[in-house]
Amino acid sequence: MEKIFIFGHKNPDTDSICSSLIREILDKKNGYTNTEARRLGKVNKETQYVLDYLQIEAPELLEKVEEGQKVILVDHNEFTQSVEGIEKAEILSVVDHHRIANFQTSSPLYYTAKPYGCTATILYEEFKQFGHEIDKKEAVLMISAIISDTLLLKSPTTTKKDEQALKELSEIAKIDVNTYGIEMLKAGTDLSEFSEEELINLDAKKFEKDNIKYKIAQVNTVSIDDVLKNQVKLEEEINKKIKEEGLDLFVFVITDILNNNSEILVLGNRSDIISKQVELKNNRAFLEGVVSRKKQIVPFVEKGIQ
Amino acid sequence: MEKIFIFGHKNPDTDSICSSLIREILDKKNGYTNTEARRLGKVNKETQYVLDYLQIEAPELLEKVEEGQKVILVDHNEFTQSVEGIEKAEILSVVDHHRIANFQTSSPLYYTAKPYGCTATILYEEFKQFGHEIDKKEAVLMISAIISDTLLLKSPTTTKKDEQALKELSEIAKIDVNTYGIEMLKAGTDLSEFSEEELINLDAKKFEKDNIKYKIAQVNTVSIDDVLKNQVKLEEEINKKIKEEGLDLFVFVITDILNNNSEILVLGNRSDIISKQVELKNNRAFLEGVVSRKKQIVPFVEKGIQ
Repeated sequence: MEKIFIFGHKNPDTDSICSSLIREILDKKNGYTNTEARRLGKVNKETQYVLDYLQIEAPELLEKVEEGQKVILVDHNEFTQSVEGIEKAEILSVVDHHRIANFQTSSPLYYTAKPYGCTATILYEEFKQFGHEIDKKEAVLMISAIISDTLLLKSPTTTKKDEQALKELSEIAKIDVNTYGIEMLKAGTDLSEFSEEELINLDAKKFEKDNIKYKIAQVNTVSIDDVLKNQVKLEEEINKKIKEEGLDLFVFVITDILNNNSEILVLGNRSDIISKQVELKNNRAFLEGVVSRKKQIVPFVEKGIQ
Repeated sequence: MEKIFIFGHKNPDTDSICSSLIREILDKKNGYTNTEARRLGKVNKETQYVLDYLQIEAPELLEKVEEGQKVILVDHNEFTQSVEGIEKAEILSVVDHHRIANFQTSSPLYYTAKPYGCTATILYEEFKQFGHEIDKKEAVLMISAIISDTLLLKSPTTTKKDEQALKELSEIAKIDVNTYGIEMLKAGTDLSEFSEEELINLDAKKFEKDNIKYKIAQVNTVSIDDVLKNQVKLEEEINKKIKEEGLDLFVFVITDILNNNSEILVLGNRSDIISKQVELKNNRAFLEGVVSRKKQIVPFVEKGIQ
């Protein structure tokens, strides 16, 4: 039977992996047996914590898709963040919580976007709409995605729907969300074994506006200084990436998940987009209360572009 | 209170008008009191038949929107088919059954697309999801949109969901769908009072692909010959439109709603896009079994462009 692949964005985060798995489960419950979760990159440590907790395997890696391949996108829509070959794939369905851009299809499709903090919250509502029971494993997958995307409901992207879903799911899973959540988030901040090259690629998303190509990479940490201790080497790798991909701007966001602030490291020949809005010292700026790429950093960059 | 406008595409058809009205009713039932249906053009005769049947007024005309105006789109998403100023509006929500293209937002939003024959069928499902009762007026609005978009379930765009919705709605409305539908469709084919200039604008949609700008206008009739009796004048008006809007191609589709076929009249310096696929005689071709712009004509043009 022809397989339909379900996947989140490149540099997958916990929402991308967990929502792919959840969507596969939802499809199976609805009788669609040929959809299968995939991932577009390495599993990060936070997500690995979740998979280990549940003792399940990660989805298989998907490098690219052939023309006409049927796919379902979760947690993203922009082609720049999707699989190689997406332009020629047949997109059957999208479930996402981001803005819509750099996306088009030639046929009608299912598209469900809601401005929630997390894709899994949308899928949670679909489980309820279809009247499906949710078991412990499913609940933990959704809980993990919600905690990750909302930083335990502290990110400004958090909505009442995420709060409500997390509350109801925690009752099903019978786990203490705060204890589990802090452990999961902390697992994700263990960056010790990553090279600087890997750090700036771990969770990087590419954007384009008015012909300006920019990339925003983000890491979570409990110590900003620790991540920046080798700034010279980080800048070297960022400049290499800028050259390789023809970027105009690279913003590396180091987010302190305990205090909910971020430091940014900014490079590229269009770093004026940032520096005209906030003073950069040594290519860096501290952004109080900023934790969300989608809700805070992207609009900030776009404001600078306009 | 700040108003939020709900509207369908330019040259509104029955689905665009009825779904705007239905979405306003749905919003009110859900407690949102400040959304109001609007229309982006003249009410056509088919839609007027529906409004007269229900003894209700058409939504107010909306000429353009100011920057930051909050809007909800139904039955379309492509900016080329939307209101003047849409690029600077804040799109809160979209409910649609077309492909997604020439559309983008800077913020997350609600987007519900399903590949059904009609937007009203999606809204019908939302009424059910929210557990709202449907009264006779609401049922007739939805029935009319479904009949119009699916040509009484005969168009290839028709899905099981449209069939099912129409069946359930006809039980609520207690009307004979076939009798009502034929009368409604026939009302739409009364083109007697339209000039040739008006005919080619009645239901025209603009598209763009690979920098090729094209327009597909469609009229329904019970006599194709009758519509084409003044072909010279029609061509004159089409050529004027091509010049005015810088179009590369104009396809005028005359659909016989009783026999479910269409004749096309093709003009523009890129009419080769059509003529390499089907022989044009006197700029015309007869397309057996073709009735749907979305499912048949647009893919046909796009195939020619590639």
